[in-house]
Amino acid sequence: MQPDLLDVIQQRYACREFVANQSVSLGELALLVEAGRLAPSAFGLEPWRFIPVTSKAKRTAIAHACQDQPAAAAAAAFIVVVALVAALDPDSKYVQKQFKAEARDGDPAPIHEAYRAFHRAESIAEWAQGQCNFAAAHILLQATHQGLGSCPIGGFDAAALSAALRLPPGETPALVIALGRCAHAAPQRLRKAFN
Amino acid sequence: MQPDLLDVIQQRYACREFVANQSVSLGELALLVEAGRLAPSAFGLEPWRFIPVTSKAKRTAIAHACQDQPAAAAAAAFIVVVALVAALDPDSKYVQKQFKAEARDGDPAPIHEAYRAFHRAESIAEWAQGQCNFAAAHILLQATHQGLGSCPIGGFDAAALSAALRLPPGETPALVIALGRCAHAAPQRLRKAFN
Repeated sequence: MQPDLLDVIQQRYACREFVANQSVSLGELALLVEAGRLAPSAFGLEPWRFIPVTSKAKRTAIAHACQDQPAAAAAAAFIVVVALVAALDPDSKYVQKQFKAEARDGDPAPIHEAYRAFHRAESIAEWAQGQCNFAAAHILLQATHQGLGSCPIGGFDAAALSAALRLPPGETPALVIALGRCAHAAPQRLRKAFN
Repeated sequence: MQPDLLDVIQQRYACREFVANQSVSLGELALLVEAGRLAPSAFGLEPWRFIPVTSKAKRTAIAHACQDQPAAAAAAAFIVVVALVAALDPDSKYVQKQFKAEARDGDPAPIHEAYRAFHRAESIAEWAQGQCNFAAAHILLQATHQGLGSCPIGGFDAAALSAALRLPPGETPALVIALGRCAHAAPQRLRKAFN
């Protein structure tokens, strides 16, 4: 067993300030999105979409939606993880397509029925946003691995962010991930003990 | 940049059946819990607890709560990720302690006030469960890295599971992670395309 994954996990921290006028390449962003894309999700629904953002105008709009907090204001790029809420309707084409794939050559009806009951019982928007955290965790670790600083930002004006990204109705921003070269060293790690 | 984290991410898959009569050592479980413990969380609240389970009697009870699905029935061990819901009350000692740490030498009042507004607006149990997915993603990747098979199980009888684990009121199981030596090879990867 190699010890290196825990090294990456230990090296990740929320970067609060990025070096100005640096860029994150499209190649770097593509690897981050790939890490997110491969994340697990309940029912295999992958209820997410990833929006990489590098343009100055959009970055400014995203930063505003994040109350211009320093990590957002100086980020070289963002990946916004968007929850697909309306697509999770049990009768949507999206769900049908995902379950057809998930069933492989089998019958998708049992999983579809189980999901129908689940969807009725659940606050689906909040659930979808929670599922997005699987993908976000992958992206944050991959960013660390690529030597990028990252900051997950959950405190944003959802309406302003949706407008900036022109999200269609039924899609909700789940998490903003600010990216760049971190301008500070890792702070002392704060974590409660296991027990 | 080393390519190996994406390798780990690509190698992870939901193992649906484990080799019988294998064990997962306490040392292996300790590394998995450490991976989860270091996950990020909003407001630095770490609203989770990890319960490693190896005893036969408890494993059987957990498998029952998971409808005896194959991945649960033959798991050599579990880590149950538990959401701390009641502890997230803005006036709890838990929150006060976390924010005092989060503020480091500064004043915890601003973050506490922001959190108070957040807590009022949010479905806090679902939110806490969603936060647990950050930790779960770390654990699943770390298991892959350690050569262990894993299966995240969200479909369980929460009351039965809480009883099996003797969870106090105010704690809710968020995810069961079944662990062991996987009895099958990686299935063909199913993922929707990025665009």
